[in-house]
Amino acid sequence: MPLESISQGIQNEQHSEVGQPQVLVELLGQADVRFNGDRPWDIQVHDEMLFKRVLTHGSLGFGEAYMDGFWDCSALDELFSRLMAVDIDEQLAGWFKFRLISELIRQYLFNLQSTRRAFQVGEKHYDIGNDVFEAMLDSGMCYSCGYWERTDDLERAQRQKLEMICRKLQLKPGERLLEIGCGWGSLMHYAAKHYGVKVVGVTVSKAQQKLAQKRCKDLPVTVELMDYREITGSFDKVVSVGMFEHVGQKNYQTFFRTVNRLLSDDGLFLLHTIGSHKRVKTLDPWTEKYIFPNGKIPSASEITVSLEGLFLIEDWHNFGRDYDRTLMNWWLNFNQAWPDLKRHYDDRFYRMWKYYLHSCAGFFRCRKGQLWQLVLNKQHYSGVYRSVR
Amino acid sequence: MPLESISQGIQNEQHSEVGQPQVLVELLGQADVRFNGDRPWDIQVHDEMLFKRVLTHGSLGFGEAYMDGFWDCSALDELFSRLMAVDIDEQLAGWFKFRLISELIRQYLFNLQSTRRAFQVGEKHYDIGNDVFEAMLDSGMCYSCGYWERTDDLERAQRQKLEMICRKLQLKPGERLLEIGCGWGSLMHYAAKHYGVKVVGVTVSKAQQKLAQKRCKDLPVTVELMDYREITGSFDKVVSVGMFEHVGQKNYQTFFRTVNRLLSDDGLFLLHTIGSHKRVKTLDPWTEKYIFPNGKIPSASEITVSLEGLFLIEDWHNFGRDYDRTLMNWWLNFNQAWPDLKRHYDDRFYRMWKYYLHSCAGFFRCRKGQLWQLVLNKQHYSGVYRSVR
Repeated sequence: MPLESISQGIQNEQHSEVGQPQVLVELLGQADVRFNGDRPWDIQVHDEMLFKRVLTHGSLGFGEAYMDGFWDCSALDELFSRLMAVDIDEQLAGWFKFRLISELIRQYLFNLQSTRRAFQVGEKHYDIGNDVFEAMLDSGMCYSCGYWERTDDLERAQRQKLEMICRKLQLKPGERLLEIGCGWGSLMHYAAKHYGVKVVGVTVSKAQQKLAQKRCKDLPVTVELMDYREITGSFDKVVSVGMFEHVGQKNYQTFFRTVNRLLSDDGLFLLHTIGSHKRVKTLDPWTEKYIFPNGKIPSASEITVSLEGLFLIEDWHNFGRDYDRTLMNWWLNFNQAWPDLKRHYDDRFYRMWKYYLHSCAGFFRCRKGQLWQLVLNKQHYSGVYRSVR
Repeated sequence: MPLESISQGIQNEQHSEVGQPQVLVELLGQADVRFNGDRPWDIQVHDEMLFKRVLTHGSLGFGEAYMDGFWDCSALDELFSRLMAVDIDEQLAGWFKFRLISELIRQYLFNLQSTRRAFQVGEKHYDIGNDVFEAMLDSGMCYSCGYWERTDDLERAQRQKLEMICRKLQLKPGERLLEIGCGWGSLMHYAAKHYGVKVVGVTVSKAQQKLAQKRCKDLPVTVELMDYREITGSFDKVVSVGMFEHVGQKNYQTFFRTVNRLLSDDGLFLLHTIGSHKRVKTLDPWTEKYIFPNGKIPSASEITVSLEGLFLIEDWHNFGRDYDRTLMNWWLNFNQAWPDLKRHYDDRFYRMWKYYLHSCAGFFRCRKGQLWQLVLNKQHYSGVYRSVR
């Protein structure tokens, strides 16, 4: 792992203390992070352009400066966990205009949620193909949090997640299952194969549609390319994994109304989404437009306000800590595959991807980030729902 | 069971159709309920004073008319389930001033939540003693919803509930457990005896304090008579069962702040409360003052809005259907014990109690009522919480 060697080297270097803006030193101090300190989570400054970038562009500058190699850190995940754990933005509200930490959280949002955009950007700029995801993810290509109950293995954690979703939905042979945001089809494949359900999956990505169709070709699975609001029909069960983060706060109620319309009266709906420990303010216009269009991590109150009157909450399961572990396993896989991947990607891409995975891991480690599975039904549901774990 | 015989008799009687106000006939029609119909859930009118009472006093009049024997119904629980299932009040908003159905829900609130008041009223007017509760409840005297997983027995359902709470809280020997609203001490007794914890229970009822102290006298259990806001100290675990319904919407955040203050950073808090399928509007001044002071059934959004920033939701479990079953079992026990009890209570009390238990059962059967157990912790919680069922 070349990067760790670099970081180790950096820690032993001497760095000039000249040029560290006091405001940033104090800010980091609140999170117990130092420039050129000797703890694994300290920031090793390679180029003082870092300071200018952060002061003028906040977290975007911080991230880009990392991609450009202006700084390093041997425990990037711990750095992010510490930066995000302290609500520096709240303490400094009033005089501190750019709010470094809230920007970092936005940066996280940018990275994690704009998968599709990153993917498109990737195709354009880095020629990202499925090779990155195939190297990083489990064999089923689940691009969402695994369930690490009694296992240390990513493959097993992802399979357990799929199995748990099917059990929570009480899938029965012949039932019609709708998946809103079906990704590369891992859940559709699992549910059709092991539970005998007929699946309709919906995605807005042609690439995902193509691969999902290929992987499910011998199963009763249909993959449609459309917006969730355009879906018609009636389904016994509905599931949505890692798609709600793209819905946007203004559309939460539309989303729940749509599912309510599509779900039979006796049906069940499982919503799997990243959650925020509390309401995150609206993204600023620039971030919204340039970085993260229509994306938003919901808080518990934002979800409940939107679903009340449409659905009953039968079950709400939080396993956010497992996302930290999932992300760190993706990082290990990616890093291990780098010698092969680097023939098609440059160092800037490597650092961008590392930054993305570690900042997300830190978000979940400090418990600002949650991973929620909610099981919802309508008031008309006639059975007794027993939640499972 | 004399009442059933009466009802059966009533169904075969001829009743005058004169005097049924059309507005009430139409209103009931929306819930598929008829005056003097032949289905078990139809209302058998004994005295047309019923109509006047309902039209002038809404649900209060409806309930009092039942207590006075002006009407009957052989399946009172089904009647309430039907009346509450349709949102008649919403459909009729505007011209229909007294909103029968919303009043019925209030009536439910009156009955279930003002346990303490009912108890006091009881001591005064009916000489209610522990005999009613001893006859009605399980031997542990749990006056809250049982957990009817794989059992048909109230005794077992209540024991399972206590066991599940202890497991969800991950109680360990020597830990300090605080119970806010300890009732007659069933949970304190169970937790101290089977899990070796030291318990502080808090109640505002002297009678509850006395009986709880007596029942827990050989265990490390302290029972304090105080308001929850006055509690001091630090606890490893906090639990509150069926007390949040008395907190009142204005105090939700105070309640969560108080628990946050009392709970150690690595602690767990289990909140067991009745929930409403959606926000219920503020009680009107008369109801608030006369029937149900400071009482309120929370909706999911009201809870999440109040706890956000103070707690993380680790687990949210709904077993509201089990309250229907619990209430119907309480009714069977009460009815069975009536030949003994009636030496100290009059018929009006019998009908009041029957009305109370059946209206609550209907509330849960139609799924307006939920029974929620939430497991909450602070962001500082260092472990990985695995929820159990």
